[in-house]
Amino acid sequence: MSYPEKVLIYEVGPRDGLQNEAKLLSTETKLGLISGLVQSGLREIEIGSFVRPDRIPPLADTDPLARALPLTPGVHYSALVPNAKGLERAISAGLRKVAIFMSATESHNQSNTNRSTAEALQLYREVAKEALAQGIQVRAYLSTVFGCPYEGKVEVEQVLPLLEALLEMGVYQISLGDTIGISNPRAMEEMLSAILARYSLQSFALHLHDTRGTALANALIGLQMGFTTFDSAIGGLGGCPYAPGASGNLATEDLVYMLQEMGIETGVHLGKLVAVNHYLQKNLGKKLNSKYVQTIPFSVSEANS
Amino acid sequence: MSYPEKVLIYEVGPRDGLQNEAKLLSTETKLGLISGLVQSGLREIEIGSFVRPDRIPPLADTDPLARALPLTPGVHYSALVPNAKGLERAISAGLRKVAIFMSATESHNQSNTNRSTAEALQLYREVAKEALAQGIQVRAYLSTVFGCPYEGKVEVEQVLPLLEALLEMGVYQISLGDTIGISNPRAMEEMLSAILARYSLQSFALHLHDTRGTALANALIGLQMGFTTFDSAIGGLGGCPYAPGASGNLATEDLVYMLQEMGIETGVHLGKLVAVNHYLQKNLGKKLNSKYVQTIPFSVSEANS
Repeated sequence: MSYPEKVLIYEVGPRDGLQNEAKLLSTETKLGLISGLVQSGLREIEIGSFVRPDRIPPLADTDPLARALPLTPGVHYSALVPNAKGLERAISAGLRKVAIFMSATESHNQSNTNRSTAEALQLYREVAKEALAQGIQVRAYLSTVFGCPYEGKVEVEQVLPLLEALLEMGVYQISLGDTIGISNPRAMEEMLSAILARYSLQSFALHLHDTRGTALANALIGLQMGFTTFDSAIGGLGGCPYAPGASGNLATEDLVYMLQEMGIETGVHLGKLVAVNHYLQKNLGKKLNSKYVQTIPFSVSEANS
Repeated sequence: MSYPEKVLIYEVGPRDGLQNEAKLLSTETKLGLISGLVQSGLREIEIGSFVRPDRIPPLADTDPLARALPLTPGVHYSALVPNAKGLERAISAGLRKVAIFMSATESHNQSNTNRSTAEALQLYREVAKEALAQGIQVRAYLSTVFGCPYEGKVEVEQVLPLLEALLEMGVYQISLGDTIGISNPRAMEEMLSAILARYSLQSFALHLHDTRGTALANALIGLQMGFTTFDSAIGGLGGCPYAPGASGNLATEDLVYMLQEMGIETGVHLGKLVAVNHYLQKNLGKKLNSKYVQTIPFSVSEANS
């Protein structure tokens, strides 16, 4: 089996992770988190979302956070923009990269963003056009590619036209999301093969959730198929709102550990990442989900005493 | 990628799992556990160990447990036997299948069983001979095949002569153990390829631990290489004594979930397995490690109130 030599990790913990946390972190604490992630060697960090601040309270401080980010050569920050207003805020806060987001399924688009798929595409065409005109890079998240909580299995015929539409907008990458962690290695291979039969590998990232423990096995299929960009979240943040206690995003630590052991370069220092995990456990006051980190003695209660 | 149509699961929870639990379960509770496993469709169950009862208190009742097992057509029970005395006890308790166990590394043999590798082989030659003479099937566990807590990486040259010696004894299967969950997909493939270059696939099972979250990814490599027998433990029982809180064996539920989603037959009913997991959580009074089961609402404290 052959594997890529290098993998680029998009750290989505400060956004996709924290958005599901009941405990709100201060902007200062988030800056500590982000600095730690940067010092660990992560180069792509999604810091928040320019949705209406009352919509997602844990991300309400995205504007001041973006303004205070530690600027480091080679490090790129991004945030979600749901519309033209969000894009304006992102640019005004100094970001040079934004992400648009929609689902592969009609019902998930409706329930998640209160828009139809067609409305989302129409809106994002304008947002992407404006962003590109201003020299801002645009990434796209396509959720529920491998399964939807409302519609179940998603067919490749649903996915392909959306990829086409997003690529036509000029997004530089589409992150294919297993939003509810329902994919399996065989289904991954089927969907990804169908996508790669039509589009270039370089246009895609994989965004995997570990809800049922299969994220690394699914990532392995991605690696075997040549994917070199993976999203993950420190501490496996981002549990499922429907299943309290269930795991969330693929944990960055577990991904980095596996890649490192396989001899695949990530540029990320695992020990430093563990320290960031401990910082986050301490500040969230709870145990996080990375299995790798659980092998290292640490107690949240002792850390806070 | 091609995968086997069927997989046989060896459930090792009642032995490899419970041996690390501080809380002792009564023989009656264990019988409830084993009945549940059988009713879930598991066909190979390792129930305990005929070591000296004072050595591993959670398994001290292996003799009465073996005598009280629910006999079901097609279900095979086994237990570890460390020596001739253990074999005698196993036969006397009515078992028709036993397992011998040793490590691929000298230091792990010494620390785990207080025997050298050569002594272990010599002893087991006699045990296996006697067992086979009495019509008892013998399985072998070879631990630390993919890494040793004392010696680190294990070379294929260390492993091959031990496989040769065990197969010569007439064991019907060798379970290759990633005892401390330190393997990775690339290392798995290297070791397994070297083994399969010399021996038949049918002689082996994979025994994976999920200490660092990589068990399913490692299992996937095994599946891709054609392995059809996997050990696992209900609830991911069997944490590492050196890392409290760390995950133990690959959880049977997670393995069954992934295989089922991949369309690979196991004969195991996942819903029934979840009920057994909940029974075990209740009786051990703690949360278990299966990620799949964590998606299903259940509270240990409520179950006990």
